[in-house]
Amino acid sequence: MPHEPHEPQVPRVPRVPHVCQVPHAPQVPHVPQVPHQAGPLLMKVLCSAVEASSTHVETNTRARALYRDAKGEILGAALESFGEERRVRARGGVILTTGGFVLNDEMLTRHAPLAHRCSLRVAATGDDGSGIRLGIAAGGDTLHMDALSVSLPITQPWGLKRGILVNRHGQRFINEDTYYGRLGESALLQHGGQAWLIVDHEIFEQPEYMEQIAAAGETIAEIEQELSLPEGSLQSTVTVYNRHAQEGEDPIFKKSSDYIKPIARPPFGAIDCTTEEALYAVFTLGGLRTDPTGHVLDPEGQPIPGLYAAGRSTSGLSVGGYSSGLSLGDGTFFGRRAGRAAAARSTSKS
Amino acid sequence: MPHEPHEPQVPRVPRVPHVCQVPHAPQVPHVPQVPHQAGPLLMKVLCSAVEASSTHVETNTRARALYRDAKGEILGAALESFGEERRVRARGGVILTTGGFVLNDEMLTRHAPLAHRCSLRVAATGDDGSGIRLGIAAGGDTLHMDALSVSLPITQPWGLKRGILVNRHGQRFINEDTYYGRLGESALLQHGGQAWLIVDHEIFEQPEYMEQIAAAGETIAEIEQELSLPEGSLQSTVTVYNRHAQEGEDPIFKKSSDYIKPIARPPFGAIDCTTEEALYAVFTLGGLRTDPTGHVLDPEGQPIPGLYAAGRSTSGLSVGGYSSGLSLGDGTFFGRRAGRAAAARSTSKS
Repeated sequence: MPHEPHEPQVPRVPRVPHVCQVPHAPQVPHVPQVPHQAGPLLMKVLCSAVEASSTHVETNTRARALYRDAKGEILGAALESFGEERRVRARGGVILTTGGFVLNDEMLTRHAPLAHRCSLRVAATGDDGSGIRLGIAAGGDTLHMDALSVSLPITQPWGLKRGILVNRHGQRFINEDTYYGRLGESALLQHGGQAWLIVDHEIFEQPEYMEQIAAAGETIAEIEQELSLPEGSLQSTVTVYNRHAQEGEDPIFKKSSDYIKPIARPPFGAIDCTTEEALYAVFTLGGLRTDPTGHVLDPEGQPIPGLYAAGRSTSGLSVGGYSSGLSLGDGTFFGRRAGRAAAARSTSKS
Repeated sequence: MPHEPHEPQVPRVPRVPHVCQVPHAPQVPHVPQVPHQAGPLLMKVLCSAVEASSTHVETNTRARALYRDAKGEILGAALESFGEERRVRARGGVILTTGGFVLNDEMLTRHAPLAHRCSLRVAATGDDGSGIRLGIAAGGDTLHMDALSVSLPITQPWGLKRGILVNRHGQRFINEDTYYGRLGESALLQHGGQAWLIVDHEIFEQPEYMEQIAAAGETIAEIEQELSLPEGSLQSTVTVYNRHAQEGEDPIFKKSSDYIKPIARPPFGAIDCTTEEALYAVFTLGGLRTDPTGHVLDPEGQPIPGLYAAGRSTSGLSVGGYSSGLSLGDGTFFGRRAGRAAAARSTSKS
């Protein structure tokens, strides 16, 4: 997935001369000027800040359990590293920033089974739900464990947004130029992961993340038949779309006029956007319930003293629908707040 | 809602001579032969059985808390009745059968906010989530707290199934003769509670649970315009539908041929099925996680000794989509299993 790699990428040279022009955001100073991806830069800055601080970092170490006293206050954690266990006391508190649970098959089956149909799980190795379970075991509430981010990257190259995405009823269901996370959520969760991008000779380009052509033909009727869509359904959809596309409009789903053209020039084709063939990239959004300081709350909404969480191990900003970058807010903004709250707690206790 | 009343109903005389015939299920001995509703009979039988037993029943009594020992075994409950509190010890176990949480505004906002848009909450007075919270406080896990049953009863009188239900894009999205719980879930959760039932002169009857006519006109184009649907969208939907309806078919959504006729005879009309005007009847489906004996499980899947649950306070059979009667299974079948398991535990302890 374009926004989630762990390796820096070589800047990509556009391969397709007729890709549509999209206006760039104005370059204001707080936007990092890096080729394509800001993630590696962000990690570099964060890691340097940690290195320059007095923070003690231990890698290859797993938290096995949390300790609490009779009142429910979190006192510390049991850690394990290469088979050796030891206990550490928390001065201010424990902050869980352990990611989501997309690598935990059993939790997925229980909470969000459709995730199993996605071909790519977007994850760091720690996204196994263990941190969320530590929080639950300490009395933490969870929220929206069913929520998923599902990306279907049909929008690269961008020119493909000029195609129309249809479901197994031959109907359009979304504006094709929307965020690919919204495309994927809708295609998987509302349309059973059965979708096809209909293009004509002028629109077709080789998609970057999908390879299969599900149908090709000289008429839309042929495409309809090859995809086993109900007779007349796709033809009618294309007819209505084209009628408005001639005016540069999409009154049904409000696609930008930059990406509207009639689908009229044979041959026609259908790019396979089903879960069986296309790249669906998934990660979980639900997790521990926190207040805005990152304090983990119990089911009555009361904070669990000394327990904080941030990032994908919480039910954060994005449970209502993911958008690229929201994890940064859940991770850094609320992580900072949690850190400050725990530090303040440490001061007030000493 | 037709299947959830607390009062017996007078048998209903069909008002409409041309209502479609639906074959009756064969009358086998274990189907109670009662007019229209089996619920009151079922409650009568169950209450008689309780009265005939040595069971001690206390009404007007609220469980305030559960007690457990250091190992997490549930020992009993704190009860309150008319301001007086007392503690009872459980011999075999505590079984929570306290309903769902549709009357708890705060829990709805947190877990299933769309429920707030429904005009009718299907509930007994106890559906306030308090039993589920008792179970959580005792360490119980929850599942699918986001799941809702949402009924949109457009199918009474049954002849209205011959209309077509369209969303704000002027598209059909479901077979109109399906279970009204499936209609409501789809209309609310996938189409934003914005739907209209399109009928013609021959189909129109006064719906039993909806009153508003959103549009009327001599052509489908007029209806489209009055509903502010995208130009051509509804006309195209009706054209495709009619083309197959002439053959008695619905290849797109597979409605039964009993309910298929072209929408062709003016005047045409649109019955308002939006959440603003129509009856949407909602209750919650998520709750405590149990094993098949009704034992409440913790987040690691381990049973909490002495704690059982059944019915709508659990995440039961129906979280993937409600169907009339499923609550009976969640209530009686799993209630019986929980009772037996708790009784067996009582015997094995003594």
